Amino acid sequence: MPSDTLLISPLGGVGEVGKNSTLYQYDNHLLLVDAGVKFPEEALHGVDLVIPDFGYVTERPDDLIAILITHGHEDHIGAIPHLLMQLERQEPVPIYGAPLALGFIGVKLKEHGLREAADLRPIGPGERLPLGPFEAEAISVNHSVPDSLAFAIRTPVGLIVHTGDFKFDPTPVDGATTDADTFRRLGDEGVLALLSDCVRIEQPGWTPSERIVSEALGEILAKAPGRVIVTTFASNIGRLREVMRAGYQLGRRAAVVGRSMDENLKVARELGFLDLPTDVMIDLRSAQSLPPNQVVLLATGSQGEPTSVLSRMGAGDYRPLKILPQDTVVFSATAVPGNEETVAQSIDNLFRRGARVIYRALNERVHVSGHASREELKHMIELTRPRYCIPLHGEYRMLVLYRELAAEAGVPPESVFVMEIGDVLAFGPEGAERAGAIPSGSVLVDGLTIGGVTRVVLRDRRRLAADGIIVVSVAVDRETGELLSAPDVVARGFASPHDGEILEEARDRVERALRRVGQGEPEYGFLMDKIKDTLRLFIYEQTRQRPMILPVVTEV
Amino acid sequence: MPSDTLLISPLGGVGEVGKNSTLYQYDNHLLLVDAGVKFPEEALHGVDLVIPDFGYVTERPDDLIAILITHGHEDHIGAIPHLLMQLERQEPVPIYGAPLALGFIGVKLKEHGLREAADLRPIGPGERLPLGPFEAEAISVNHSVPDSLAFAIRTPVGLIVHTGDFKFDPTPVDGATTDADTFRRLGDEGVLALLSDCVRIEQPGWTPSERIVSEALGEILAKAPGRVIVTTFASNIGRLREVMRAGYQLGRRAAVVGRSMDENLKVARELGFLDLPTDVMIDLRSAQSLPPNQVVLLATGSQGEPTSVLSRMGAGDYRPLKILPQDTVVFSATAVPGNEETVAQSIDNLFRRGARVIYRALNERVHVSGHASREELKHMIELTRPRYCIPLHGEYRMLVLYRELAAEAGVPPESVFVMEIGDVLAFGPEGAERAGAIPSGSVLVDGLTIGGVTRVVLRDRRRLAADGIIVVSVAVDRETGELLSAPDVVARGFASPHDGEILEEARDRVERALRRVGQGEPEYGFLMDKIKDTLRLFIYEQTRQRPMILPVVTEV
Repeated sequence: MPSDTLLISPLGGVGEVGKNSTLYQYDNHLLLVDAGVKFPEEALHGVDLVIPDFGYVTERPDDLIAILITHGHEDHIGAIPHLLMQLERQEPVPIYGAPLALGFIGVKLKEHGLREAADLRPIGPGERLPLGPFEAEAISVNHSVPDSLAFAIRTPVGLIVHTGDFKFDPTPVDGATTDADTFRRLGDEGVLALLSDCVRIEQPGWTPSERIVSEALGEILAKAPGRVIVTTFASNIGRLREVMRAGYQLGRRAAVVGRSMDENLKVARELGFLDLPTDVMIDLRSAQSLPPNQVVLLATGSQGEPTSVLSRMGAGDYRPLKILPQDTVVFSATAVPGNEETVAQSIDNLFRRGARVIYRALNERVHVSGHASREELKHMIELTRPRYCIPLHGEYRMLVLYRELAAEAGVPPESVFVMEIGDVLAFGPEGAERAGAIPSGSVLVDGLTIGGVTRVVLRDRRRLAADGIIVVSVAVDRETGELLSAPDVVARGFASPHDGEILEEARDRVERALRRVGQGEPEYGFLMDKIKDTLRLFIYEQTRQRPMILPVVTEV
Repeated sequence: MPSDTLLISPLGGVGEVGKNSTLYQYDNHLLLVDAGVKFPEEALHGVDLVIPDFGYVTERPDDLIAILITHGHEDHIGAIPHLLMQLERQEPVPIYGAPLALGFIGVKLKEHGLREAADLRPIGPGERLPLGPFEAEAISVNHSVPDSLAFAIRTPVGLIVHTGDFKFDPTPVDGATTDADTFRRLGDEGVLALLSDCVRIEQPGWTPSERIVSEALGEILAKAPGRVIVTTFASNIGRLREVMRAGYQLGRRAAVVGRSMDENLKVARELGFLDLPTDVMIDLRSAQSLPPNQVVLLATGSQGEPTSVLSRMGAGDYRPLKILPQDTVVFSATAVPGNEETVAQSIDNLFRRGARVIYRALNERVHVSGHASREELKHMIELTRPRYCIPLHGEYRMLVLYRELAAEAGVPPESVFVMEIGDVLAFGPEGAERAGAIPSGSVLVDGLTIGGVTRVVLRDRRRLAADGIIVVSVAVDRETGELLSAPDVVARGFASPHDGEILEEARDRVERALRRVGQGEPEYGFLMDKIKDTLRLFIYEQTRQRPMILPVVTEV
């Protein structure tokens, strides 16, 4: 790469929602903004998490100056433990972020036994960090988690504005607005490139203020005849606090149920984000002893996660807490794409148990997004007046729509770069141009395995999931190749109306086929193929299914 | 069951969307309305279709007087072949429906080789069918497929109105309106019970007319610089015809790409539902030779189905047709719950290929529902003034919301029955009351197997999908129990960074454990358990995964 050139490459968060991470490089100095995870779609069988391929960084561990964190959402911080595990350095890399984001990261690192190995450095809006050839300035933005930041990154070739996730909320509940003045000032200074959130570009207009959610939840709390159980994203500290505050004013105490919400609120409280009277929060046992109309519960389960408190209450298998008559349950969230069915099921089950459930289709004010809608995204362009734009955080169609939007704000389409993961953009004295790609992609995490879920493993899992497996084992004489016993046929996950019969017939066919092979040391591979060929066709004809056929030949 | 009692039981379509089927019984006379399928959620690994459990009917095959079909959607007709296959009768059961629905059923029966075995009897609005103790009157309703019917079912205990799927469209494109006069007349006559569609009860107000879709698509066809490719549900004949009509007026010829759309349009044309000039429709090859702005293509893929034309065009592997610059693709549909991600992916891919894609988030007029919204559902109650209501076709929450809606229309909550599948409602001289349940549920179809996918099979498939399988085979001496060879360990779908190493270590551990067992005819089951126990813990500790461990012990 030529020197005097700034390279920018998204390692995630373009062409998909989630696992946001952006790499900045100048000479051999690397700077990473965010390191998020994506939760796998169902086709990724058994995969726990999807993280970016950090190979380019982990091959140059000592070139990494710092990691900047915009905010504490999983899709921006979730991959930090995995990145640190892969980063072989003497000294831990400094991770800069606002206190709440670092608090959430700390919990995550602790779970992975990495707390001591990390160098977390809190920063706040207005601070400027010298980072080798870069200088990063933190800027306050409003989002659905408090303490969110954008970064102005000064580089030798020009000023970059990296928005992170944001919206312009004129009446935020946690006091922090998006600092339009600073963005305008940066625009005055001259912005080379704007890297912008674009995930809600399909939504026209402006995203409503979080204030309307506080009001809606306040009305529900005031009217509800019994307990109110509110679920939302466990990181939405501002909203959770507003629920507790409103409940308290109406004579309701709050108890928190569910690990992730409990942990997040603990971190938030320690860091001073819950400025509430000390007797607002009580434990679940105390809440159970109060009259129902003096209680509000904050529970996990806004995405219908099967192990969450609300899903288990819906299924009736959460011992500490049952749905009572006159319970009101509020889903103060929308289903993240992919979770629509589990959320619907959870709502249905809660209705079945007799709860009154209020969700977005019935009252659209119970949730608003933390992301900028179309006009806000345009406003950000107008404030910063960048020469180039790179939309981040969106699926491919959103990136294309952002290019059209930018044109409306005066940035010509050829100055807006729709990137795919790993694409490199080079900023030199002449301007920006595409400069190939670096190794990149998705790495699948399953249990302790980072990357062990390969294409082959996934293909096998899909096959196994669809039609199961038939294992055929035979013992043959090592010397003569003679069959020493009748084949053994065992099936798992294989469906057939006359299961036993078909498997018996299958065994007979394999036995006949192998006897026919005759004597004289037939090759191992030959036997395996013979078994496979014999069964594959027979099973398909009988069932129209294609289970995996796994022959096991033991030579004795 | 007492005589002089009418029993009604939903075999599907309550507490879920899809596989609609309702059983009416008077004495030993059975009448079935619809027999639909549901497409499986991903958790039902490998399952092709979900159909109702028709066991109660198939145990009394000769008691079934007829099957009435409301309309030709899969969730109302898809299970007919499976029902007929299970119904052992001398004479085929008469199936009554409007011509288009029967046309679609005919195609389906042909695929299953059942065309000759079925007794299809076309009926039209206003016709009255004597059916043993019942009399069914067909009533025109408007829905997203032409030729839709509701039924007034006269029984010895009173008049039942079964709406099927409907909306009140004042300006329908296929000429058929919902016959409010007849519903009002039935109300005057006195309706014992209204069985009503309720699937869009979460939507306030009235569903917009199909007319606005025709207008929106017409505008798009007029403005598009190149080809226009429209996808919608393959059964939405009215909309497809309007696209062709509008295109023709603008000088565009229409070609159909994709099997299901092609087949449905063929049936529709034969039955006279496509009153268009004969030169409107051309084949794909002719379309390819025309200038792009003289072409409109109707293609399958509105749900992002991986094998559909549009999905394959997006993926770039549909040979006959590629996306061209200036192509406009219109998704004239919404994603059915569960399909959100595949639809989004398909749209993204089409953008990647350079198409301009128009979908509902960008232009909400490109699709409207065929189902009644809240106020229309109330209007139906007001027209028919039933003594009792049974909401059908909805997930559980929708049934509960319908009870609230009915109260607004003057039907008290205790007269609205929220049913689960198989629940029986008995209508006698005293009124309606719950009367237990009949055998019912979901039957899973996989390949040729109806019902072979059991709970155990599914549990195994889930396990296999999540973490794969490790097969351990050993040969032992039948007499002495002595190990005759080193164990063989094979894994499929199992992920581990040091795959080979772990499996080798696993083999050693099994061997050591079995050698330790010592001589003297150890029991077969004991060996199996020993292998499982040895590996389960080891693998979990090493990988935090729980693959299925399948020991195969061959006695020689």
